[in-house]
Amino acid sequence: MDSLIITDVGLRDGLQSQATLVSTHDKLRLIHALFAAGLARIEATSFVSPRAVPQMADADVLLPQVVTPRGARLSVLVPNLRGLERAVAAKAAGIAVVLSASDTMNRKNIGMGLDAATAVCIATLERAASLGLHRRAYIAVAFECPFEGITPSSRVRELALQMTAAGAEEIVIADTTGAAGPDQVKRLVRMLLDNLSAAQLGMHFHDTRGMALANAWTAIELGVRRFDASIGGLGGCPFAPGAAGNLATEDLVLMARQCGLDTGIDLADLLDAEALAQDLVGYPIGGRSIHWLRSTASGPMKEKNR
Amino acid sequence: MDSLIITDVGLRDGLQSQATLVSTHDKLRLIHALFAAGLARIEATSFVSPRAVPQMADADVLLPQVVTPRGARLSVLVPNLRGLERAVAAKAAGIAVVLSASDTMNRKNIGMGLDAATAVCIATLERAASLGLHRRAYIAVAFECPFEGITPSSRVRELALQMTAAGAEEIVIADTTGAAGPDQVKRLVRMLLDNLSAAQLGMHFHDTRGMALANAWTAIELGVRRFDASIGGLGGCPFAPGAAGNLATEDLVLMARQCGLDTGIDLADLLDAEALAQDLVGYPIGGRSIHWLRSTASGPMKEKNR
Repeated sequence: MDSLIITDVGLRDGLQSQATLVSTHDKLRLIHALFAAGLARIEATSFVSPRAVPQMADADVLLPQVVTPRGARLSVLVPNLRGLERAVAAKAAGIAVVLSASDTMNRKNIGMGLDAATAVCIATLERAASLGLHRRAYIAVAFECPFEGITPSSRVRELALQMTAAGAEEIVIADTTGAAGPDQVKRLVRMLLDNLSAAQLGMHFHDTRGMALANAWTAIELGVRRFDASIGGLGGCPFAPGAAGNLATEDLVLMARQCGLDTGIDLADLLDAEALAQDLVGYPIGGRSIHWLRSTASGPMKEKNR
Repeated sequence: MDSLIITDVGLRDGLQSQATLVSTHDKLRLIHALFAAGLARIEATSFVSPRAVPQMADADVLLPQVVTPRGARLSVLVPNLRGLERAVAAKAAGIAVVLSASDTMNRKNIGMGLDAATAVCIATLERAASLGLHRRAYIAVAFECPFEGITPSSRVRELALQMTAAGAEEIVIADTTGAAGPDQVKRLVRMLLDNLSAAQLGMHFHDTRGMALANAWTAIELGVRRFDASIGGLGGCPFAPGAAGNLATEDLVLMARQCGLDTGIDLADLLDAEALAQDLVGYPIGGRSIHWLRSTASGPMKEKNR
């Protein structure tokens, strides 16, 4: 059976934008609930400056407490060599670097231009490779940059190849602002597949304009099988439900199941994790299918799934 | 430029499930707001029994008051020859019949089995053809029936061909319960395209499981250009936002625009119609992209669009 590999990024991309600090204890509960639902890939935290992202200040103490099931892998985001050192000290199994595909976005985000940011990512990936860590590289704002507009596909390809050459095992094409439509996804993925295999590619969608699932399906049709998603669609603004959240894990799992793609994830258990995530952030979350999922979770879905 | 032809069914499929009765005056305001936004196809009402659907009791007086712009067409749903007579008396330009693709669904819905329902639809289409009215035929529960389960594709094809032979100019494949995923859409549409041209096909999706846009994109990729959609996603249950609404017109228009497909619809004006629809039903509505659309409608979108 064909299958998808889903990385839940709710704890990182989802929580980093939340004003409410979630305790280390509660993050552990959520990580373990996701593992229990069958998630085999979780991006758990980010070794960025605690001053820049207070929500991630507990990364060093969080990571060593995670009990990772056999066959699963926890990854963490590291901005540079310093972050990588912290991740290694905390016994990370995998890391991800983030490279924005525009000069301005890098400057706004990390205070250096595209060339300098590329050099930092290369150095970090090479060091991580020498340490035997699993390595992902995000190409952020891969479709559109809020400052520079449409991102040239050729630049995305060039950066993807540089990251691959530096040792990235997966290139994650990130529609950071949720600006892509399926036609853009089709064109970029097709171009990237000229140089990379589908197994080297992952997609990271936000649902700002409601097209995340359509975008994911488009990538699936082109052979991509690795996707980021976020439990409950976490990542949006609490004051505008659904405004800018990530593609919700439950939506992707449901579509995959319906289309004959195995994810290894139990939807009923995933809803338990989703309910926990909602408790932790303190406002209603949930993907596009959440009402239907909740209404059926106690009935046929539970039976069919287990 | 390639284009989509969108039929807004909010006034029919959307309002028929609303407990709050909308006045004829307010329905006219909404119809004219949709026309003003550039909708060229509106399914305005249904000539069913006023006892069965009180919301549609004003069909006979509503229709003659509509001012249809040049090039636009108003259609109405008619259940049988009696409904057709009423539609003709009210000067309808186009009609639609609904045939459920399962025996049980027809019995539950209109108190007769599939064969009898097929005969009624054929008689109605033939009479409408002789009167020179535009004719659409819905094949409802085309993917899954809540009573009988998965609908055999071969039956959908057979019914579609029977309706075409009876004079239907468009066959509208309706995922009445929002049960389809893109893989099911791909398989059914491909099969139908063996016998029908893409121009004869329309798709009607509900967003129950969040896949309506992904489904629409799948059909677009196969050449389908006619879609039903509902302003604000009207059609869901007010007590479970997003639960079972139609594909929202604004979501489809946005995706089309983003993917280089012309719809003739101005998104800013469409949001005005959406705001009106929300006033009329009295609870928050809106498609998957509504927060983003609202946040940008007064800014760049307005300028770009006009």
